This record gives sequence, structure tokens and C-alpha cells, in this order.
Amino acid sequence: MRLATFLVPGSDAPQAGEVRGDAVVAFADAGTVLDRLASGDRAPAGGEEYALSAVTLLAPVPRPRAIFCVGLNYAAHAAETGSEPPPAPIIFMKLPSSATAPGGEVVVPVAAQRRLDYEGELVAVIGADGAVAGYAVADDLSARDLQGREPQWTRAKGFDNSCPYGPWITTADEVPDPHSLTLRTWVNGDLRQDSSTSDLIFDVPHIVEFLSQTCTLEPGDLILTGTPAGVGMGRKPPSYLQPGDVVRIEIEPLGAIEHRIA
Amino acid sequence: MRLATFLVPGSDAPQAGEVRGDAVVAFADAGTVLDRLASGDRAPAGGEEYALSAVTLLAPVPRPRAIFCVGLNYAAHAAETGSEPPPAPIIFMKLPSSATAPGGEVVVPVAAQRRLDYEGELVAVIGADGAVAGYAVADDLSARDLQGREPQWTRAKGFDNSCPYGPWITTADEVPDPHSLTLRTWVNGDLRQDSSTSDLIFDVPHIVEFLSQTCTLEPGDLILTGTPAGVGMGRKPPSYLQPGDVVRIEIEPLGAIEHRIA
Repeated sequence: MRLATFLVPGSDAPQAGEVRGDAVVAFADAGTVLDRLASGDRAPAGGEEYALSAVTLLAPVPRPRAIFCVGLNYAAHAAETGSEPPPAPIIFMKLPSSATAPGGEVVVPVAAQRRLDYEGELVAVIGADGAVAGYAVADDLSARDLQGREPQWTRAKGFDNSCPYGPWITTADEVPDPHSLTLRTWVNGDLRQDSSTSDLIFDVPHIVEFLSQTCTLEPGDLILTGTPAGVGMGRKPPSYLQPGDVVRIEIEPLGAIEHRIA
Repeated sequence: MRLATFLVPGSDAPQAGEVRGDAVVAFADAGTVLDRLASGDRAPAGGEEYALSAVTLLAPVPRPRAIFCVGLNYAAHAAETGSEPPPAPIIFMKLPSSATAPGGEVVVPVAAQRRLDYEGELVAVIGADGAVAGYAVADDLSARDLQGREPQWTRAKGFDNSCPYGPWITTADEVPDPHSLTLRTWVNGDLRQDSSTSDLIFDVPHIVEFLSQTCTLEPGDLILTGTPAGVGMGRKPPSYLQPGDVVRIEIEPLGAIEHRIA
């Protein structure tokens, strides 16, 4: 099941629904995507149906309680940043207000605009009992200027709108092997990242177990699992995001997100 | 005004109230401390009155959306850890589930128990429009073993219950100068930290402005402003917290928190 949060034209009330092909079917009750992640309820949607092209997709869980990220979790990416592969997952956080829609414009605070970079990533989404309930696609937008100057990455990684994700959450039952997915990122149509989650250094169960050692995971928590090689800072010469640039990140079969830097 | 969240015996429904002397007076409406931080409503409480000794104080905002912390923000503390004073605030985060009551037992996850350390700190609490609405006292409990091994401090600092704070939030109008407060920490009655917030490297307005450059602060956000010298890791030999140890942190006129390591 593909769980989406969306707006229909003329309304500012987000609805939850199930994506089926090119349509999204609203749930007839008032429950949110988060409610379904928490309850495990997978009953098909039975409400009104809309063409996907007619709605605006929002972040599936609009304000995750916690957005965990893993740094340097692909060997080739570690190499392109001049780092050794880490001996244990490097865990940092974005803010609830980092989460933003999978499409449209991304407004980046001025302080984070210098050396702005994309990072296409597989997201694991937590459901009941700290277990992974689904998967999605994210851009771990990074302010490399701040990241280079500040030893803790809260500002460099947790700025407002630094986490476009979606386009929906595909429930885990439809992703038999999250470690064999092709991940591709384009900037303005130019292919920049072309990798597979099979190259993850620490796989999803490892990360979940590692996090759970210190904190109780909760429904709707996001875990961004790290980015493969091909980020802007790894290019020669480095190439950062500019206003107007369009980032597209696709993980089949989870779908694609595409956002424009404002 | 001193805003508290508390339980009365026999009830598991938290109430919000105003601390007056040795009593807490419940607000007659159903509003929370967070509601009052957000609205700026400072109308006196008019509900039932309880002796403070008869209630259980909880974390004033039970689940802050964001708990920001500043590292190495006192020169003498930077020196005792072998670090230079930083050129800019070092910002890291705890989790919403790090917040815990200002009294009672603190249950620390096993993975965070090795080289567990206290850090007495002044907390600024955000209200409307990203402005500081009040102040409180916190222990930035730190797992030095994890902190030494992991470059990002999410696990070392953000474990469950790593942020006892309170005992209440004193509204900013009653704290004319937050940079002239005496901060003292005792472990089992032994004075370990004895400093003043006048020694902060980056003061509260500086930190708030610095954070606001990248993220929109929201009501109930906590900012732990850093700890002075005297932590366990700085002692010769180092001295870490053991089960049964009692940590007391006092900042006059904000009150004191006192918690026992389970």
C-alpha cells in the first residue's frame, strides 16, 4: 500500500489516501498516514478518488517527531568526501520542520544557501513497536558551508525545508528487499547519482537496532539511510545547487520526488 | 510566573499550574504550559491549590518539539575537556523523548550507562515568535563513552531520559538578567559545579539568533545553553555517575532539580 498525504485544489485541509496507479483514493475516515503507520491498519481506502496529477502531495507524515540520518553510509560516498568508511553508523538529526513536500519549491534559509548540496536517500519509516513500517525517498539537503565549519551538523542538515521526502510511503510488505533498490538522482536532467541500496555499509536492520539501543523509536520517525556517491561536493570541480535547479530522486519501486530550489 | 506541569496523587492526568511559594495552583482551564508559552497568557491561576510537596512535578513541556543544546559554551569547561573555546556555538540536539521529570529516578538505557556524566545548565524556553519566554534548569546527561566514539552526538546526548529539566519554567519577565545567575551542581551532596551564567561564551540572544538563521524556533523549544566546569570527565581521576547517585542542580532564582540515577 502506498500511503500519501495530499491537498485537493481549493482546500487547505490535508487528506490521507492510498495511491493506486495514477490516482489517489482518500480514506473515508479522518485518520492520517501517521495513524495508519502506528496502528498497522492496511484496510483499502474507500473514499473519494482523485487523479494524482490533480492533487498536491505533501510530506506523508508532515511533522515527524524525529528525523534520524546516517552519515557516510556508502563506501564510494565516504571516499568522495575524503573520509574513511565509519566503524559504526554516524547518526545525526534534522528537525520536524525540516520535513517538506516531495514536489514544488524548496525555500532554503539564506544561511544555508552557500554550497547547498543534494543527497538522494532511501528512507525507512517507523511504525508500531519500533519496527520499520514502510519506505520512501528523501533529499538530505545539506549546507556544505556550515557542515564544513560546524562540528555538529544541526544547522548544516536541520535547516527549515532541508528534507523533501515522499512521494508517499510504500508499506514494508511491498518492499521485500529494501537492500536491492536502484537509487538515481538528477539535477536539471543530468544524472548525478546512480547506485543501489545494496551498497549500504550499515543496512536498515542494523541502523534500527543501533538507534534503538539509546532511544525508543516511535511511529512516523524517519531514518534517512545515507547517500551514495555523486553529490555536488564530490564533483571536480564541486558543483552546488543554485536557485532554479531541479532535483529529481527516484528509487524504484518507491517512486520519485522532484523539487526546485527557490 | 512559574509554570509547572504536575500530577496529583491518584491521577495520571497531568495538570498545568502556577507555582506560588510552596504551593502550586492549577489553572482552571484545560490549557497546558505549552499553550501559555505560545499565547503569552499570564493570567494568574485560579483553580485548585496543592502543596508542592504533595504533587509530582513533570517536565514542564513534556515533549518539546526540539531540544537544542550548546556545546563547550563556558571557557573553563572547554579547558577541562581539552578543547579550545569554539569560534561559534556548537549546536546539537536531544530528542523529544529525552525530556523527563525534574525529580525522581532517571532510567538510562544500558548503551548510555558507560561513563555517564552530568552537565548542569541554564535552559531558555521559546514562546511566541521565536522569542525566549522563560528559563529553567536542566541536566544535559551525557554518555561520555558514546560521545568519545561517535562524531555526531545524537546517541551520546539524545538517549531516552537524558534531559531532566524544570522544576518549572520561570517566565522571562521575572528573570531580568539571565546572564548573572549562580549555577551549582551537587552529586550526592558533593558540590561539583559552582559557576555563573555570566561566564557563558555565547549568551542567550546570540544563541537564539544563531539558531534562527537556519530554523524557525517554535513554542516549547528548549535551548540548553551549555555547562560550566566541574563535570565528572574533567575530574582527576574522572568520576562518572553510578546507579543510586543523586544529582542536584540549582540556579537561583529558577529553583532546583534533583534526580537519582536508576
